[in-house]
Amino acid sequence: MYNASKFPSFLNGCGGLLFSWGDNFHGLVTLGTRFDGATFVSNSMIMQGTTEQNGFMREAIRLAADNVQKGGGPFGAVVVLDGCIIGSGANRVTTSLDPTAHAEITAIREACRHLGHWQLTGCEIYSSCEPCPMCLGAIYWARPAALYFASTREDAASIHFDDAFIYRELQQPLEARSIPTFQLLRDEGLRVFSAWETNPDKIRY
Amino acid sequence: MYNASKFPSFLNGCGGLLFSWGDNFHGLVTLGTRFDGATFVSNSMIMQGTTEQNGFMREAIRLAADNVQKGGGPFGAVVVLDGCIIGSGANRVTTSLDPTAHAEITAIREACRHLGHWQLTGCEIYSSCEPCPMCLGAIYWARPAALYFASTREDAASIHFDDAFIYRELQQPLEARSIPTFQLLRDEGLRVFSAWETNPDKIRY
Repeated sequence: MYNASKFPSFLNGCGGLLFSWGDNFHGLVTLGTRFDGATFVSNSMIMQGTTEQNGFMREAIRLAADNVQKGGGPFGAVVVLDGCIIGSGANRVTTSLDPTAHAEITAIREACRHLGHWQLTGCEIYSSCEPCPMCLGAIYWARPAALYFASTREDAASIHFDDAFIYRELQQPLEARSIPTFQLLRDEGLRVFSAWETNPDKIRY
Repeated sequence: MYNASKFPSFLNGCGGLLFSWGDNFHGLVTLGTRFDGATFVSNSMIMQGTTEQNGFMREAIRLAADNVQKGGGPFGAVVVLDGCIIGSGANRVTTSLDPTAHAEITAIREACRHLGHWQLTGCEIYSSCEPCPMCLGAIYWARPAALYFASTREDAASIHFDDAFIYRELQQPLEARSIPTFQLLRDEGLRVFSAWETNPDKIRY
């Protein structure tokens, strides 16, 4: 387990930290700016991490490298809460015969088991590569406080993984997608939504 | 298990089938048109299903309705191969404390266990609702032959599920997303990709 400062501590420490965006952009985070998505100057950028953040990312990368040696895909991820890793994973699609066994999905599931909850409130996710749409969707459902990644979807495409292709497909109208997609029996599907809405015991999430 | 005609049989039977798109579009599928995504007139549309297709969709909807009674979310899905259901699932996020336990993810994992493979080649997926980005991503990784759904992402939003929101988020540039997202240590991440590329034992997928 890592013992590192949690996200708010990093926030306190990052005032004045110099950021660079590609070769062109350089910005200075204003002291006191909050990471609430509304007032932060830019909530996504290429950054110099703190020692702690780099440590967590290097653990995700180490899991990816170790997984390659074991015959798995070159992807690793960890979930961090209060400076400790509470979930980790590596890509086991071909080794576990499960197309959903990506590093982030596995790490999220482990972290949720650890917490006994379906939400990763206050957690950070470190992934050795930008999450694919499946994993990014899972991250949105888990609702962590922040996401860090190393290589990009384009980097993954350069070694023949479909991440960038799937991102493009999700932006296509349904009729233009490579997997033929049809809608039928919507009225019958909606009846279940009505039953859900009127169920007094439902748990919203 | 359903015993219904598999997808190619439906194709043979659907020549001349009248389609409607909302209240406005009506089209006629040409006999002999192939579902290869390139030559089909439109590979996504609101359709009148065959008896077999409607049967599979009603099974997905039944799983969703049954799940509501058990305290789960109003979503169900089945995976079909050669006219038989080989995987099924319902939304167990709150009941299994797992944000990835959506109906489609569960059904895909079960079907892959059944097949002993990480690909759903030749399979169809029937979901009671349009898949969220996580599940649609999983579907693309599993690479089935076709996808059918009943209610839409907007219908899910109307009962307060985040599907439509997450679709919009994935189309946002990283710096505009609601979950703060950062990139760091790309060079170290890329080294693992190089190790993967030079590994003679890797399994591409």
